[in-house]
Amino acid sequence: MNRECQILIPQWLLTVNQKFEVLSDYAVVIEANRIQNILPAAELKQDQEYAQAEVIDLPNHVLMPGLVNAHTHTPMSLLRGFADDLPLMDWLHNHIWPAEKQWVDPQFIVDGYALAAAEMIRSGTTCMNDMYFYPDLIAREAQRLGMRCVVGLIVLDFPSVWAKDADDYLHKALAVHDQIKEFPLVTSALAPHAPYTVSDVAMQQIAMYSNELDVPVHMHIHETAHEVAEAVKNSGARPLERLDQLNLLNSNLIAVHMTELNLFEIERLAETGVHVVHCPESNLKLASGNCAVAQLQDKGINVCLGTDGAASNNDLDMISEMRTAALLAKNVAHDASACTARQAIQMATINGAKALGLADSIGSIEVGKQADLIAIDLARLNTQPVYDPVAQLVYAANSQQVSHVWIAGQNHLRDFQFSQLDEDEIMSKARSWASKIGQVNRPGK
Amino acid sequence: MNRECQILIPQWLLTVNQKFEVLSDYAVVIEANRIQNILPAAELKQDQEYAQAEVIDLPNHVLMPGLVNAHTHTPMSLLRGFADDLPLMDWLHNHIWPAEKQWVDPQFIVDGYALAAAEMIRSGTTCMNDMYFYPDLIAREAQRLGMRCVVGLIVLDFPSVWAKDADDYLHKALAVHDQIKEFPLVTSALAPHAPYTVSDVAMQQIAMYSNELDVPVHMHIHETAHEVAEAVKNSGARPLERLDQLNLLNSNLIAVHMTELNLFEIERLAETGVHVVHCPESNLKLASGNCAVAQLQDKGINVCLGTDGAASNNDLDMISEMRTAALLAKNVAHDASACTARQAIQMATINGAKALGLADSIGSIEVGKQADLIAIDLARLNTQPVYDPVAQLVYAANSQQVSHVWIAGQNHLRDFQFSQLDEDEIMSKARSWASKIGQVNRPGK
Repeated sequence: MNRECQILIPQWLLTVNQKFEVLSDYAVVIEANRIQNILPAAELKQDQEYAQAEVIDLPNHVLMPGLVNAHTHTPMSLLRGFADDLPLMDWLHNHIWPAEKQWVDPQFIVDGYALAAAEMIRSGTTCMNDMYFYPDLIAREAQRLGMRCVVGLIVLDFPSVWAKDADDYLHKALAVHDQIKEFPLVTSALAPHAPYTVSDVAMQQIAMYSNELDVPVHMHIHETAHEVAEAVKNSGARPLERLDQLNLLNSNLIAVHMTELNLFEIERLAETGVHVVHCPESNLKLASGNCAVAQLQDKGINVCLGTDGAASNNDLDMISEMRTAALLAKNVAHDASACTARQAIQMATINGAKALGLADSIGSIEVGKQADLIAIDLARLNTQPVYDPVAQLVYAANSQQVSHVWIAGQNHLRDFQFSQLDEDEIMSKARSWASKIGQVNRPGK
Repeated sequence: MNRECQILIPQWLLTVNQKFEVLSDYAVVIEANRIQNILPAAELKQDQEYAQAEVIDLPNHVLMPGLVNAHTHTPMSLLRGFADDLPLMDWLHNHIWPAEKQWVDPQFIVDGYALAAAEMIRSGTTCMNDMYFYPDLIAREAQRLGMRCVVGLIVLDFPSVWAKDADDYLHKALAVHDQIKEFPLVTSALAPHAPYTVSDVAMQQIAMYSNELDVPVHMHIHETAHEVAEAVKNSGARPLERLDQLNLLNSNLIAVHMTELNLFEIERLAETGVHVVHCPESNLKLASGNCAVAQLQDKGINVCLGTDGAASNNDLDMISEMRTAALLAKNVAHDASACTARQAIQMATINGAKALGLADSIGSIEVGKQADLIAIDLARLNTQPVYDPVAQLVYAANSQQVSHVWIAGQNHLRDFQFSQLDEDEIMSKARSWASKIGQVNRPGK
């Protein structure tokens, strides 16, 4: 008899296992932080072990693995809607970077992280791959709030609030990497910002540490045609070519954006096992170009999904990102059968887990994995009737239909109510940041 | 003293008037079906006329004109998610058309219309431009449910459940046109399905009736490159060229999709005042190609927005459609400043009203216009903080944040609750259709 279990009985169990099984009349048993059992619901009654467990009925719901946001800058949620409809370089140089320089401090990180985490829970994301300043604080806050997080150990050549030069960034990166060993929900990735902001010397050290410590490398690469053209102009080599020479193309690399790829590069990514993070809404909003998702998938490259930061999206909603990814891939491939609903769901779950080196513990609903689970209520006008719950999730569902969220077995959302976070307090802090920032930086508004 | 008034006091009043004014601390007064006054909230207390009126505070809300869905096929909501991830011709010929042939009857229309109308109200749409069989029933149901609707008087060369040949369609079209004169919320448009399904003879009659009766012509045109290429192969002329010869290019024409346009055609559209309905999510999902939205806007062409039917979208959510339109236009134009948040909102409101010939009565919040209004609650994690409510609406808001809806002064949604419709009954009828249709037409599922 086990009183500590939670038993979830959804209408549809979307396992995202190898066979992509969608099961009806099944129950999932959570014990502590893990999925302890998956069994036909009819067998539950006969099983004395579960006689006193808590049963959570999900009669109109899909139960699926928690969504994995494979690229974001969480604290930028405080700059959501701060500057829009601007070309990338104007947006960065004249709006985002000056605002960051003026406002980013430890309290900005803590309040921005909380806003992002709450928005993610509300919309079904249970794990994020982050890249921002103060990774030490992000790691601490993730663990404190119960979010699963891969914290990006940021590296740049130029000074910021976090470090003064590449050596200092690397030194701090290693310190944070050690410090998080005591945080069960947090792992780390080395995070050189981009090829154009990190020198060869630092890149070589990153390649060495990644190999030695077996940690991922998380980097913006080939975000725009401009980036590639500038690199060719300045050095004669395309950024991916340079990274290849620096021994960075391997299965530890999480390459974000990748809108500009030639056929040779696609072959090379496939050979080397590089993971690609597609951020369709950010790419669209900044007019960065198109990632050739269907072509990469056809080559067997692992493509996963990220929202990017809330300043370029402008939300952290992985359900809408799945939909945009599936729709955009069809457009780019000129093929309505490209990037199916099923592939979009894999991109947002198991593929993200693979890229982050976490596929053994998250990304699908299988016995023994961590209980990172979400339920989505399809009994809404926009998702009725249901011929196929997978298509309904990707093409019609809305993130506000996420009713329940568990991370490592701990419930965070239940019947649409937060069980851990104080939503009003988080929003109130965000508003007070905006009233300060908006007054100074947006005088015309 | 006027007890019949409703007074709305939003945080932000998004007028969508000529100057695109966004007002704070203003009140909007609804009297019967019209906007009777717009005044500073501070002046309300001194005005005895309003002493006993009902006041509705909207403290975290944007109040804006109801959204105008300029192209849809409402009853197809019952086929939402019935067949996805398929090339256009396979989808139409092997899935949608056979299912329609088997299942569309008056009860399908009534139940499908109710599902669509409820979904539209829930997501802030107050007016739709429809095209489907049984326009008589759609007109009747729209009026009965209190929805504003332009009913498409469909015309085809081939037989359907509604009519047997082009003459019969036209005969019925004129009968419905007369019949709806008693429905204050309903107007009509002649709706030849597409250039490739309607002959020259019928097109000429449509041009004549449109001119004589001054009603719009609502047609799918240049949806795909394939359509244009086939027309050239079969007749030597591109569809738009043929329509021009048939005197159909004028300010009564509502041209839907328009993904394939050359520079000459764009000039011709601008000269003749044709309205273009962009349906970005449907175009993406069916890989139909890209409408050159920014280019059309630069030429002064009126571009509005539609969801298309729920079988190819798969929802009727104009808030997500605004966002997709703004994002996709930047991608197509290679310019992050193309199709701003403001333009996206105009496309979804006043531009739609213009296309439908209703700009004198709806599409903006101005004294004397019909009270078609919606409120959107921005006090949600994904729309906080607010630097700019316009950007927040387009790039971060979710249709589930629509809290209040009025059509012609009648309240349909209040604090997220339907005041007129029975949501559970509507979903239950949709489910019973799907259980019949799914059993017969999707044996493998």
